[in-house]
Amino acid sequence: MAGEFALIDKYFARPTPSAVLGPGDDCALLQPTAGKQLAVTTDMLVAGTHFLPDTDPKNLGWKALAVNLSDLAAMGAKPRWVTLAGALPMVDEAWIAKFAEGFFACAAEYGVDVVGGDTTKGPLNVCITAMGEVEPGHALRRDGAKAGDQIWVSGRPGLASLGLAQLQGRIDLPAPWQRLCIGALEKPRPRVALGQALVGIASAAIDVSDGLLADLGHIAERSGCAAAVKLVQLPHLPKGESYDAVLRKMALECQLTGGDDYELCFTAPFDQHLAIGRIAANLELPLWCIGEMTEGTAGLVTVFDPDDKPVEFESKGYDHFSA
Amino acid sequence: MAGEFALIDKYFARPTPSAVLGPGDDCALLQPTAGKQLAVTTDMLVAGTHFLPDTDPKNLGWKALAVNLSDLAAMGAKPRWVTLAGALPMVDEAWIAKFAEGFFACAAEYGVDVVGGDTTKGPLNVCITAMGEVEPGHALRRDGAKAGDQIWVSGRPGLASLGLAQLQGRIDLPAPWQRLCIGALEKPRPRVALGQALVGIASAAIDVSDGLLADLGHIAERSGCAAAVKLVQLPHLPKGESYDAVLRKMALECQLTGGDDYELCFTAPFDQHLAIGRIAANLELPLWCIGEMTEGTAGLVTVFDPDDKPVEFESKGYDHFSA
Repeated sequence: MAGEFALIDKYFARPTPSAVLGPGDDCALLQPTAGKQLAVTTDMLVAGTHFLPDTDPKNLGWKALAVNLSDLAAMGAKPRWVTLAGALPMVDEAWIAKFAEGFFACAAEYGVDVVGGDTTKGPLNVCITAMGEVEPGHALRRDGAKAGDQIWVSGRPGLASLGLAQLQGRIDLPAPWQRLCIGALEKPRPRVALGQALVGIASAAIDVSDGLLADLGHIAERSGCAAAVKLVQLPHLPKGESYDAVLRKMALECQLTGGDDYELCFTAPFDQHLAIGRIAANLELPLWCIGEMTEGTAGLVTVFDPDDKPVEFESKGYDHFSA
Repeated sequence: MAGEFALIDKYFARPTPSAVLGPGDDCALLQPTAGKQLAVTTDMLVAGTHFLPDTDPKNLGWKALAVNLSDLAAMGAKPRWVTLAGALPMVDEAWIAKFAEGFFACAAEYGVDVVGGDTTKGPLNVCITAMGEVEPGHALRRDGAKAGDQIWVSGRPGLASLGLAQLQGRIDLPAPWQRLCIGALEKPRPRVALGQALVGIASAAIDVSDGLLADLGHIAERSGCAAAVKLVQLPHLPKGESYDAVLRKMALECQLTGGDDYELCFTAPFDQHLAIGRIAANLELPLWCIGEMTEGTAGLVTVFDPDDKPVEFESKGYDHFSA
């Protein structure tokens, strides 16, 4: 795509005030903050696997960056720099312009500089590497949870899955939900401020990309404990509506096993309960205490019904549950 | 590809002694060396664009990493860490094992840790981000050349293009060349030690990925000068063979315009000539002084024949030249 360098420059070479040297040389040059650790994550999004080829490129640009920033958030890191590599089947200036619009909107919102990249011809693919900074020893890892720690989740996991179900015609959501759920799917908001606020408070954290139970399972496995989730403590459905049984069942299923939300699931000692409440108030973001870590088989996540009986789930969802 | 996590772990999760935290969490955690700058580069290699889908996966693994390390070399940076993201059309354990073999052979040779990654389903695609360290203010940038600086190139640019021509049946190289040229194409050796040795000596540098004239043109353009290359000063063909005119012409064409070699092209003040000679001796790597930077149109590269007459080249090669 040698002839398209000018086009790429036009849309992707923007000022990089936080870099010593931005795009255009063999490498970008960055000056890490003295004494900080660098948190690094990379994600590849492929058309047909992670998004439909006809996805609105503006949404795709936002989301491609957002999912990487979510990984930084889950470590409690402050986002600093990103690189962007992409393959495009053909040069479509309108598509590129919209992708860049969404991408840089997300970059501006979260204060990261796009310091380098690579563009090539090929099946549609976007690969981003994001770098952030965190105090040594203070990153929120997956392996720090202890039996007795409370389990928390931010926002309303499950909305993105409901949005996907709506778009795919598998459900007909009440009107006010539709925009909310489709928005959660198309324009996820990485919990960057929450992650940084939880440094020194949370004992472990992960972002909910695969589904709440699956991701909580990753914390439990790496921390060498089990996890007990209480159904009654899960985020409740928005009030003021009457929901039928089908919607209730689907909403719960999405809440527990739906991916793509990018909320944070974290654990913290009981004595941090009030501090977490203050964070929720400061950020105007609901934080739900949904259970606690327990002694038991490492990685085992059990969901308990209102009578404290375990609810059984299949691998891809839950079973034997009636709302 | 959730079911294949174990397979990916088997081949790609290896010890990362230079990282605080390696693969398996939301991010890798790295401790940058106090006072150093971070050099970061990313490259995406796509099947059908950068390599044939049936390329030997071991060679592909080596080369995918090598081309990124070459960018670090061109900045004079010491390679430290890399992330690897890849899309595979299907899980082929034998292919993955061979790719990993080549990839980690290159990582071990150049002393980098593979600190994180992402694997997904999709058309074959490999995206690597490499990070290295360099003293602040000492990186070899493209924009530091001055009129009067000598122009240098390492090794024998053009071999990789000749190797490709041989594999494609466009030329029939003498037997001893075949292995040399195909080796240069399939297993390029990034000039990492050279790049670091040139810190404080070279005024500008770039790696020869697009072709010697094109890449020298990037230095000239960003440095605001022109470049004069002398044909008689180019690396000579291996001695002890008789070459026909077709081969001589093709070899020169590949030398000047062939890509994929990953040699370093750099500039340095005249008074560094002896220091550069010592580096060549220490590294047992030929370094050729092929011309000098001049006042003139920024980015203009002119090649002069033995009678000091300019030789005209077409955009994709050279013209009006008879060996």
